[in-house]
Formats: sequence, structure tokens, C-alpha cells
Amino acid sequence: MLSTMQDVPLTVSRILRHGSTVHGSSQVTTWTGEKEPHRRSYAQVGERCAQLAHGLADGLGVRRGDRVATFMWNNAEHIEAYFAVPSMGSVLHTLNLRLPPEQLVWIVAHAADRVLLVNGSVLPLLAPLLPRLDSVEHVVVVGPGDTSLLDGCRPAVHEYEALLAGRPTHYDWPDLDERDAAAMCYTSGTTGEPKGVVYSHRSIYLHAMQVNMAESMSLTTRDTTLPVVPMFHVNAWGIPHATFMTGVGMLMPDRFLQPAPLAEMIEAERPTHAAAVPTIWQGLLKELAETPRDISCLETVTIGGAACPPAMMRAFEEQHSVRVCHAWGMTETSPLGTIAHPPAGLTPEEEWPYRVTQGRFAAAVEPRLRGPDGGFMPWDGKSAGELEVRGPWIAGAYYGGAGAEPVRPEDKFSPDGWLRTGDVGVITPDGYLTLTDRAKDVIKSGGEWISSVELENQLMAHEAVEEAAVVAVPDEKWGERPLAVVVLKEGAGDVTYEELRAFLGERVARWQLPECWARIKAVPKTSVGKFDKKVLRAEYAADALDVTRL
Amino acid sequence: MLSTMQDVPLTVSRILRHGSTVHGSSQVTTWTGEKEPHRRSYAQVGERCAQLAHGLADGLGVRRGDRVATFMWNNAEHIEAYFAVPSMGSVLHTLNLRLPPEQLVWIVAHAADRVLLVNGSVLPLLAPLLPRLDSVEHVVVVGPGDTSLLDGCRPAVHEYEALLAGRPTHYDWPDLDERDAAAMCYTSGTTGEPKGVVYSHRSIYLHAMQVNMAESMSLTTRDTTLPVVPMFHVNAWGIPHATFMTGVGMLMPDRFLQPAPLAEMIEAERPTHAAAVPTIWQGLLKELAETPRDISCLETVTIGGAACPPAMMRAFEEQHSVRVCHAWGMTETSPLGTIAHPPAGLTPEEEWPYRVTQGRFAAAVEPRLRGPDGGFMPWDGKSAGELEVRGPWIAGAYYGGAGAEPVRPEDKFSPDGWLRTGDVGVITPDGYLTLTDRAKDVIKSGGEWISSVELENQLMAHEAVEEAAVVAVPDEKWGERPLAVVVLKEGAGDVTYEELRAFLGERVARWQLPECWARIKAVPKTSVGKFDKKVLRAEYAADALDVTRL
Repeated sequence: MLSTMQDVPLTVSRILRHGSTVHGSSQVTTWTGEKEPHRRSYAQVGERCAQLAHGLADGLGVRRGDRVATFMWNNAEHIEAYFAVPSMGSVLHTLNLRLPPEQLVWIVAHAADRVLLVNGSVLPLLAPLLPRLDSVEHVVVVGPGDTSLLDGCRPAVHEYEALLAGRPTHYDWPDLDERDAAAMCYTSGTTGEPKGVVYSHRSIYLHAMQVNMAESMSLTTRDTTLPVVPMFHVNAWGIPHATFMTGVGMLMPDRFLQPAPLAEMIEAERPTHAAAVPTIWQGLLKELAETPRDISCLETVTIGGAACPPAMMRAFEEQHSVRVCHAWGMTETSPLGTIAHPPAGLTPEEEWPYRVTQGRFAAAVEPRLRGPDGGFMPWDGKSAGELEVRGPWIAGAYYGGAGAEPVRPEDKFSPDGWLRTGDVGVITPDGYLTLTDRAKDVIKSGGEWISSVELENQLMAHEAVEEAAVVAVPDEKWGERPLAVVVLKEGAGDVTYEELRAFLGERVARWQLPECWARIKAVPKTSVGKFDKKVLRAEYAADALDVTRL
Repeated sequence: MLSTMQDVPLTVSRILRHGSTVHGSSQVTTWTGEKEPHRRSYAQVGERCAQLAHGLADGLGVRRGDRVATFMWNNAEHIEAYFAVPSMGSVLHTLNLRLPPEQLVWIVAHAADRVLLVNGSVLPLLAPLLPRLDSVEHVVVVGPGDTSLLDGCRPAVHEYEALLAGRPTHYDWPDLDERDAAAMCYTSGTTGEPKGVVYSHRSIYLHAMQVNMAESMSLTTRDTTLPVVPMFHVNAWGIPHATFMTGVGMLMPDRFLQPAPLAEMIEAERPTHAAAVPTIWQGLLKELAETPRDISCLETVTIGGAACPPAMMRAFEEQHSVRVCHAWGMTETSPLGTIAHPPAGLTPEEEWPYRVTQGRFAAAVEPRLRGPDGGFMPWDGKSAGELEVRGPWIAGAYYGGAGAEPVRPEDKFSPDGWLRTGDVGVITPDGYLTLTDRAKDVIKSGGEWISSVELENQLMAHEAVEEAAVVAVPDEKWGERPLAVVVLKEGAGDVTYEELRAFLGERVARWQLPECWARIKAVPKTSVGKFDKKVLRAEYAADALDVTRL
């Protein structure tokens, strides 16, 4: 039996129309580093989106499904691209300003970007790559910059304001299928080629509703949010779409992502909410200790991208009256998967054990834990498994390239279509997720999993240990066993492996204790500073480590 | 270009699964009038939903698409029906306990309800009708009641707990199309036959997300909500679905809807939110004046169904620290259309002009005002038009009956599919809606609209006027002109029509002033106490009124 409801697609243009009319007086404020920030109303953004769409379609010949890339900071013009490009039926491709050049070249070619919007301030990064970006026909420079860097380049060069000037302030946004592509973002995977996630209008719309839910980021018309998280990181966690849905004010940091200007803009513009990765906030905390500023306007800061040190959460709360709220997600999950709001009826101190978890799942995100033997693990807070998720804003494949079918690598998607997150963790009976390791790093020993991260954290608590990395090594009997690789502190004396093992024995289960130990001068690191465990595994395989078996 | 997102349908079973696992410890508390209310966890509700579905499918032969009706108060078992029936692919039909018997019989036949769940406490209402409910094969009695009233009735009679007992606590909920029917509700139109609105899984899911949005009812895991609005009124405004989506606690009043027990349950169970029509709250206010109780646990009360007198809103705030929030909707809009949160940056006193409007539109609900000449009116806060809306939880047709096509009466749906709400109002530039009249009562005079309600309110402000009704009467030159029909207060003396017209002339535009006046002893009323203007129009047409033309 069919319903009698209207069949109205969930599209980005509907969010834009709502935000620029009902909430037309809400503002996006862009920090300029000058005395006055730049302010633009949502009504103006709406008109400029129409002009941009006309400029792209009529001026540059952009058609439905074409990819329009951005190489931009968080600012009002990036918001315009966010809404105009998908609303006209094209696909917004946000390029990560911090990717290595080789990856950028690969990604632009794979996505076959036809147009590239670039902030003038990052032309020095882009210009050297441009000769190798074969698909790009037009470069549109947004804001001031040294355009002489583009002299003689192959693509046509345009100035953003000139592209918009004089064009109609209304665009007849096409009727789109809500499952059509709206935006794409490549994961900067540490191994293999980058993978493209293609968001649909539907997934963006639903995710924006989730962001606005009171049990999520709880944004209202009376809030102003500061998305420090870049707009090239998973759609700035959906915040730009959420703000237009509810008329939330936006404070955009542009390129001023250093602690000092961040502290200054918070004090001056008084946002009530912010979102960023922990390292940014750690820097802000230090800055505020040196140069005190009043940031108590911030009611909540949503932190994701990496686990947030509890000490930092407490410091913000105790020193600045700012509540830090943990969330978990990834490019493939749009990104909101979980958010750590405590249950009802607890004292502030009782809330902490819940707040340091990754949190509870959004209603639309269905989780399961795949255990060591391939079966599903119970939600008992103890049984670890790889987290798999299903939901309307979760990726079910990666972009295969123009004209190619989407690709579904077995290690990323289960046969029934769930996303394999690559994260290992436990879920409590009341639905709180705690991540304990990456699936590729967990040690699979005799049908049980040993968390490499937990062994490392416990080892690094020993006074003689500077760094410790634990990796799986093959074992005939158990399949895998942990190898502990330690860096000792200078002047730590002659601590023995036996002593370290005994120290560990007081803290973890006996069957988890490593038999194999090695000592090195420094743990090899990836380009983003994480332990590079595949190097250690390779060194072990090549017999390049001096391993002692206890 | 297609996205790479998973294709996961938005279904009621997904809300149930989430609520009964991640929020399994949240509770639905049902008031019993006894010392202890009845408490049931969402995990238990989840298991009982499975048992109910097995009981309906295996026990009573209910199949996909079959209608299962409820004739019940707000209680835990009604929640179970809310989730089990749609999740198994059948259609929940909530019957209004307060409808006249003739309408109930018509509606049950039109929906072809096969099974009827009825609270034992309302058997005296149902039993006399049962012989005429031909489609009903099974009656399931929920809770205590005089089942002897059903002796000898044609349908098979079952006891709810017996139907569930011993059945599996897991049900393999089928994969459904999110556009499939999930629930239905008939409007009790004052004219013509009742009209059936059929909600889809999709519309219910999206609407529940909206309810939970911070700019809407803003419900979280730390809230408990008291839906006084009956579950047979537009799905209790979507609250039951919203609660399972976020783990919000529920306090269910069952049949105890009188002011005294409501005050008692609020003080005892301390809900943080409630939802009801204004008359209920008016009664509560009086009760509290007589028997003081602490209801300050209530942070917000959402009021809809009719405009709420500002004096009452102020009284709740000043006397009980309870904030009343206005919302507008109708059966055809699921119902959330608008909600009256003020914009940012205002003092409490400056917020009032916004809070007494119907509010701003939900992002998914797109509005337009159809003016007197059929064109669309600007959002200037002055130009009135009939409100038309479009959105994924807005009806685009009415149920046509089993096997029949949906029906789209011209006066209810525009040719391009928008719902004609029948409400006339204005929208401000910042998207606040104020309703001024019903479309059938507005006076269409020379291409302009005159609000009958405004003229009535102004006239009733005159000290001599007890009641005033204004209706349109045909006019050769202007199309229609207003006729003012007044009831004068006893002992009001000899106020003349000229005096009343002069009084009105100081308050409304000159061209709106009625030329035709009549005096009657009492304004005829409908069964729900509203002015019955069609009687007055008929009396005017039949020359039965003593009309004076000024």
C-alpha cells in the first residue's frame, strides 16, 4: 500500500532555498586578519550562488555531473561553491590543501575535474602543479593573490567576482534525483591510492538534519558556529549544510588557523560552538595560557578526527567554561557516526567515563562488531571486533573514475554492503563505542584480539620508556603474537625486557604479554607523525631487528 | 553521476531497532492512577514489538499492507503497536476516541481495518459500534475492561497479553520501500466525509528527525517528554518516533487527561517537555492556581492545534517558569510545519512578537502564499494569501480506499501538487508565519482579502459586544463584502451600528469596514464550539437576518 505523501527529493538546493529565504538575515562572517571581518547575509549568499551557477554554466560551460573542484580555505565563497555546484546538478570536489603534490595530481585526474576554484592565497601551492592537471579547463581565482603565477598556464584563468558580476541573482535549480552525486572527497589513505567517496544529495541532507539534532551538535538560530575543521575534510563535518538548514550563524577562519588569530576571532565574534581536531585545540589552550582571552562564549566544542586527551577536555572546562564533546567519524561516514553525550541523571564527575568514549551512534547509523572468527560480537563493553556500519550517509563503495563502475574492495566493504571501518573497538550494552585499535594493527592471537594501542600505552607509562610500538608477528601456534619494540629514555639505566614484561603483567591479561622484544633508537613515523608499523613489520620479516624471545 | 552512498531505506523498524538497543535503558512510563505508574524499558518494548508482530502475523494472519487499527489512549502498549505494525509492513490506523459514532463506522469501513486494538477502558464506546464494523475480523483488548460487553460479537476477541505470551522476542523485520504506507489518520473535517492521510515510513522518519532538531522540540536523551496530545492526533505530533530515535524518556498519561492528574504526574515524574493543545494547558493553569504543585521541571511546552492566548503563555512563564512554544501543523503536514523560536540577540520582551506567531518553517517544508488573484504574495508581513506547502512529510493526496487511486480534491491540492492548507496568513521577510483566517471565511473584496477573524477580534474588544461574527456576502461591485453579525451584552444599552463602525474605523483600514450589519441573540456554533459561519451565510442567503446597510 502506497502512502499519500508528496514525493519531494532531499536536495542541496532545498537547503539553500530555505537558508537564503527563511534565514536570509543570518550571516557568514569571514575572518580577514584586518580590523573588520567580512560579513555576508544568507540572502546575499543565495543570490551569489545563483550568479555563480550562471557563471559556471553559461560562462564556463559546466554541465550536470561535471566535477568542479575547490582548493580553498573556509570562507564565504567556499560556502557559495558548496551550495551552487551541487544545486545546479554538478559535483563539488573539495581538494585537500595539505595533500602531497603527487596525490593532488592523481586525485584531480581521477575525478576528471573540469573547473578549479582556488583561493588567491594558495596559488603558490597550486601553480607548480597546474601543468600536470590535464583535465582542468578553467581556473577561477577567489580573492587576492599573485595571479602572475598563472601566467602562460594552459587552463583559462578567471577572476571569481568577475565571473559572477552582472549575472542573474535567480537560478532555476533543476529537479534532481536525491541519489545523484552532490559532492566528493578523497581519503588520504596511508596505503594505496586515494579513494573517492561520492556523497549524494540525500546523504548530505539527512546528515545535516542529524548535525542539528539536539542529541548531536544541537545548533539553533541563536548559535554561531566556528568550523575550524576545513571544508575539504568531509564537508567540514556537514556544518555548512546544517547552518543553512537552521539559520545558524557561521564564523569562517579562512587561512587564519593558528592559535593566536583563532583566540582573537573567538573573543571578538563570540561564536557559541566550534568544531576541530584535537591538535588545534591543544594549541589554543597553550595560546590562552600565554595570552589570556575570554572564550567563554563557546558553549560546546565538537572534537573529532582523533581521540581527545581527557586532560585537555578538563582543562577547557575548568579554565574556560567550554564543554568539549567527542565525536567519531571518517570520510566514508559523512562523517557523523557517534557523538559522546552522557546519559541522563549523572553528576558531572559521573559523566566523564561516557564523555571520553567515542559516544553513541546516530539513529541512522547501524553498527556491528565483526570478531576475530568472522562472527559478530556482543555489546558487553569487553568483546572487541572491527566496527562495521550501515546507514543512508555511509559509503557503500568508492568512486571508480569517469565512466567506470564504483569499486568495492573486500577489505573495505563486507559482502552484504556494510562499511568496514578499519577500527577495532567495543560497544557497551547502552550503545557507547570505545575504539581500541586499528584493525590492521590488532594482534590476532588464538581467536582473540590483542590491542596494540593498549600495550603501547601501558608500556609508555613505564618511567624508562620513551616510545613503544607493538606489532603482530607470525606465530605457528597462535597465528600471531605481539612484538614489543621499545625506545628507552636516555639515562634510563639498564631496564631489562623481563622488568618491562613484569610491569606490563600487572596491567594486562597474562595471555596478552609479548614474548618477543626489541629495542630501537626511534619508532619510524608516517608523514602525519603516526607510528609506521608496516616498517617495523617489514624489518622483523627481514630479520633486521635484534629480537629477544623471553 | 551516481553517489557511492549505501542505499538504506528510512523505515520505522530502523527507529525501533535503534531505540531498543542503543537506548534500551530509556523508559516509557504509563500513568495508572494507582500509587505506582507502570514502567517499561525501550529494550522491553523492542522485545514486545516482536511478540506483537508474531501475534498479529502468526496468530491473526495479518499480512503486509493490512490495516491494524488502534482505539487507545497514550500508553506503552500503544507505543508497541506504533512500532510493530509498520515495522512488519502493515499499516497502523489510529482511530480518534472522540469522533462521533457515525464517522468512526465510516472511517473503519473506508480503511477496511482487519484488526482493532482497543483499550479495555474504552470498550463501552466501542462495543455498541462493533456490529457495524464489518471489516474488523479481530478485536484485541488491551488492559483491564469489561469484556462482557463483547459477548456474542462477530469478530474474534483476544486479550493483548495472551496474544504476545510465549512468542519469540525477535522478529526479522522485512526490507520495505521507504515510500510504503506506515500509518494513517483521518481528518475530522467539519464539512464532507473524513479524509485519510497515509504516512510513509520515509515521512515518519524524516519528521521524527525534525522533531529532535534543536530548533524544533530539541529532545535529548536527558529529556523526558509528556505527550498529552493523543496518539490518535497526527501520530502524537511525531513524538513517539522522535523519542525512540534519541532515547528520550516518555511519560504517558493514558486516560488521565484531566488537569488534576496531569499536575500530579508532572510533579511526581518530572518530565522536561510536554506537548498539548491550548485548552488542556488552560485547564492546568486553573488547577495549579487552586492546588499548587511544582511543575518547574517542565522546561518547554510545545503547543499546537490552535493559537495559544499570549496571556496564558505569560502566565506559565511568570508563575511556573515554564516556557510555552507555539507550533503550527495539521493532519496533512505530519504535523510539524512551523515552530515559533525567536531569532538571536533579543531580550525576553523583544522575543514576544515572534513567539506569538505560528513560527518559522521547518527546513523541509516549503511555503508559498496564494493571493486573491491566484498569484503568489510577497513575504512582507502584510500581504495575505492562502498558505500552500510542499515537502517530504506533506500530504499530496488522500487515501482513495482499498484498491482505489488516491484522491486529490482541487480545493485541497494545487495542480502542481502543493497542499492547500485552507489557512490564510502572512509571512514576514524573515520567514515567520502569522495565520489570520481560514480561507473559506476570508472576505474576497475587489482583489484584496479581508480577515474575518481580525474584524471579529476588533469588534469583540468593544465594551458593548458579547460576540461578533463576520462573514462574506456577495457584492456586485466588489465580489464580496463583509457582513458583521453582533451579539450585544445584556445591559449594554443602545449602541448603534454607526458607533460600532466608527470604533472599528479607528482600528482597521477604511476599505475593510463592513457596510452590512445584523444583530442576533447568539452566534451559531459547531460541535467543537467554533463559530459556524456557514449557518450565518445560509441565513443571509435565505434573507433570515435583519440586515441594516449603512
